[in-house]
Amino acid sequence: MSEYIDQIETGASVGLVEKRLFTFAGDEPLVLESGRSLGPVTLAYETCGTLNADKSNAILVCHALTGDSHVAGFYAEDDPKPGWWDIMVGPGKPIDTDKFFVICSNVIGGCMGSTGPQSPDPAAGKPYGASFPVVTIGDMVRCQRRLVESLGIGTLLAVVGGSVGGMQVLEWSVRYPHMVRAAVPLATTTKHSAQAIAFNEVARQAIMADPKWNRGDYYETGRPEHGLAVARMVGHITYLSDESMRHKFDRRLQDRVELSFDFEADFQVESYLRYQGNKFVERFDANSFLYLTKAADYFNLENQYGDGSLVAAFSRAQCRYLVVSFTSDWLYPTYQSKTMVKALKKNGLDVSFCEIEAPWGHDAFLLPNTRLSDLLSGFLNKVCARCGIGGCS
Amino acid sequence: MSEYIDQIETGASVGLVEKRLFTFAGDEPLVLESGRSLGPVTLAYETCGTLNADKSNAILVCHALTGDSHVAGFYAEDDPKPGWWDIMVGPGKPIDTDKFFVICSNVIGGCMGSTGPQSPDPAAGKPYGASFPVVTIGDMVRCQRRLVESLGIGTLLAVVGGSVGGMQVLEWSVRYPHMVRAAVPLATTTKHSAQAIAFNEVARQAIMADPKWNRGDYYETGRPEHGLAVARMVGHITYLSDESMRHKFDRRLQDRVELSFDFEADFQVESYLRYQGNKFVERFDANSFLYLTKAADYFNLENQYGDGSLVAAFSRAQCRYLVVSFTSDWLYPTYQSKTMVKALKKNGLDVSFCEIEAPWGHDAFLLPNTRLSDLLSGFLNKVCARCGIGGCS
Repeated sequence: MSEYIDQIETGASVGLVEKRLFTFAGDEPLVLESGRSLGPVTLAYETCGTLNADKSNAILVCHALTGDSHVAGFYAEDDPKPGWWDIMVGPGKPIDTDKFFVICSNVIGGCMGSTGPQSPDPAAGKPYGASFPVVTIGDMVRCQRRLVESLGIGTLLAVVGGSVGGMQVLEWSVRYPHMVRAAVPLATTTKHSAQAIAFNEVARQAIMADPKWNRGDYYETGRPEHGLAVARMVGHITYLSDESMRHKFDRRLQDRVELSFDFEADFQVESYLRYQGNKFVERFDANSFLYLTKAADYFNLENQYGDGSLVAAFSRAQCRYLVVSFTSDWLYPTYQSKTMVKALKKNGLDVSFCEIEAPWGHDAFLLPNTRLSDLLSGFLNKVCARCGIGGCS
Repeated sequence: MSEYIDQIETGASVGLVEKRLFTFAGDEPLVLESGRSLGPVTLAYETCGTLNADKSNAILVCHALTGDSHVAGFYAEDDPKPGWWDIMVGPGKPIDTDKFFVICSNVIGGCMGSTGPQSPDPAAGKPYGASFPVVTIGDMVRCQRRLVESLGIGTLLAVVGGSVGGMQVLEWSVRYPHMVRAAVPLATTTKHSAQAIAFNEVARQAIMADPKWNRGDYYETGRPEHGLAVARMVGHITYLSDESMRHKFDRRLQDRVELSFDFEADFQVESYLRYQGNKFVERFDANSFLYLTKAADYFNLENQYGDGSLVAAFSRAQCRYLVVSFTSDWLYPTYQSKTMVKALKKNGLDVSFCEIEAPWGHDAFLLPNTRLSDLLSGFLNKVCARCGIGGCS
């Protein structure tokens, strides 16, 4: 039986969903934070659940670095798997589509339907490539606002996301404080450490070292697949942890009983990384990887809004926060979440914080976790009860 | 004033040293652990200090992954810098050349004078390239033994080394227990974790993804510089730590006051990594990088000597040990040294262990550190006093 039918029968799925396109800034281009202009801009987005009469039950979910708008449900009955956070979004799930109207859009700069470097540049009649302007987390959020408003929504009940999605959550809460009732930044940071920038830079150099990258102009000549695969492999290590890799692979050999004494993949972990690299190349655009990692590296909430002070940056915020970190996340370690929580509390904001014990590294926020589910559903129920939204216990 | 003259005047240097070559296995090739043969084999090596009459004061220093035989002193008076461990090896230094005769050789598979993939294959009349046999830490140590014996030395007072050099130390102590009085494995492990293998595999894939790698046959067509630079960048991150990168770079910009909004190096850490990658390419051979990382990944003391039990593996050992780890070393974390120490102690061996508080990550063993210097000189003095070697307090 397909996963679709299985889930529909148990009532656990939002069912079939559709990717929609929202286009704006056609007449008047969007002026980006870099000062450059971009237009028209398209956002690919999906929704699930039903918007209530007073439009007060909308939750925006922000995806991570290489994610997309397909947060939950299936595109077709024979779809082999559901959206990327289907464990968290659906009827009776923590982000409960029986109560909430959920929106998720692909970020600009991406390659999953929103305007990005592989989109056609109207001025040039061919894909932007490296002439695409560098975008920021702020630019992404400004576009999301246009989408949200186009749906007639003036206030979001919550903005929720992990990793680079969590950066967007933080940006929303500070940039548009009057539009956000609650913010849930998961496994994220207010600014990349030098080490996080370093890993992204190695990934970018791997792409740009591939001669097929051709300064970003490769859409007709062939994609830099080798470079992008290496970039993904680097990233993938940072999403796991020493402990999770030991559990998952240890030093087990792949399809052999003895060492090869050549440069084939001897170990399962090597084979896994090669597989992840190659699989990624099929679905992702190398230029988008450059732009999105750059946006993450540039993100610096305290510089942008607080002149170097995170406490000052959060003085603009008004919403409630649920901040969650994971013990084995060494990409955005707990100390970074704690710094965030401290700055929020200094502003007298209502903050819940939890460090969840989990061995799975940074990726933990994407994996089934009862503690995370309970925290999120409890927090959202409290928020919507206080806001007087029907159907919330 | 040159560093050479400065050091000579203060009496702190071994002075001028010379790289020598030792060639063997010309008539009868060496059968490697892979089963393949290699011959003739040349080791580049250097010595400093004086071998005493009964040849009992020799210390073998083993270099790390991309090191060489040039452990201390200068090649010429205008040499801009001394050997890689000059802080530790010299008159009055912890490995005191007034007392000890120090030997350091480049590993086989390397590219600093010893036989490796860029050496001419006598059978083919051109460099081995990827036809060079995969070598192991055991093979490296077997060659070092031939060198040591050629110098008329039957017993080493100590074998000392960090990282992959530490693996060679451990291999020596178990493979040739009758030849080693003391072993000092620093910042090392008895086997790579899945995460350590993963980083090496990404580095190898970066090299092999470079079209100039040309299946290892590039010595006439041009080296895979881009791939090797990316490989080095990956490695370099693992040699530092989150904390040391924050101290050293944080998010400081390089030669600019504002973000570039392009893909130039905005941050100092990016610029530093690019520089390290490019500098490495000048001195190192990409094929050697493949072979040496593979040897490190294959190293597994408990499988090779203990049928999966580290306690059983160390049952062969007879020497004293000084094991040192560093708090911020996440490549070979302290828990791995502790496992080693536990297995040594279960065999009733004399083991000193110290975890040194240091923020500099894995590279800490190469940096000036009073604690490490004191530990090493104290340990070596004790060892040579017990062995009745003159001149040791």
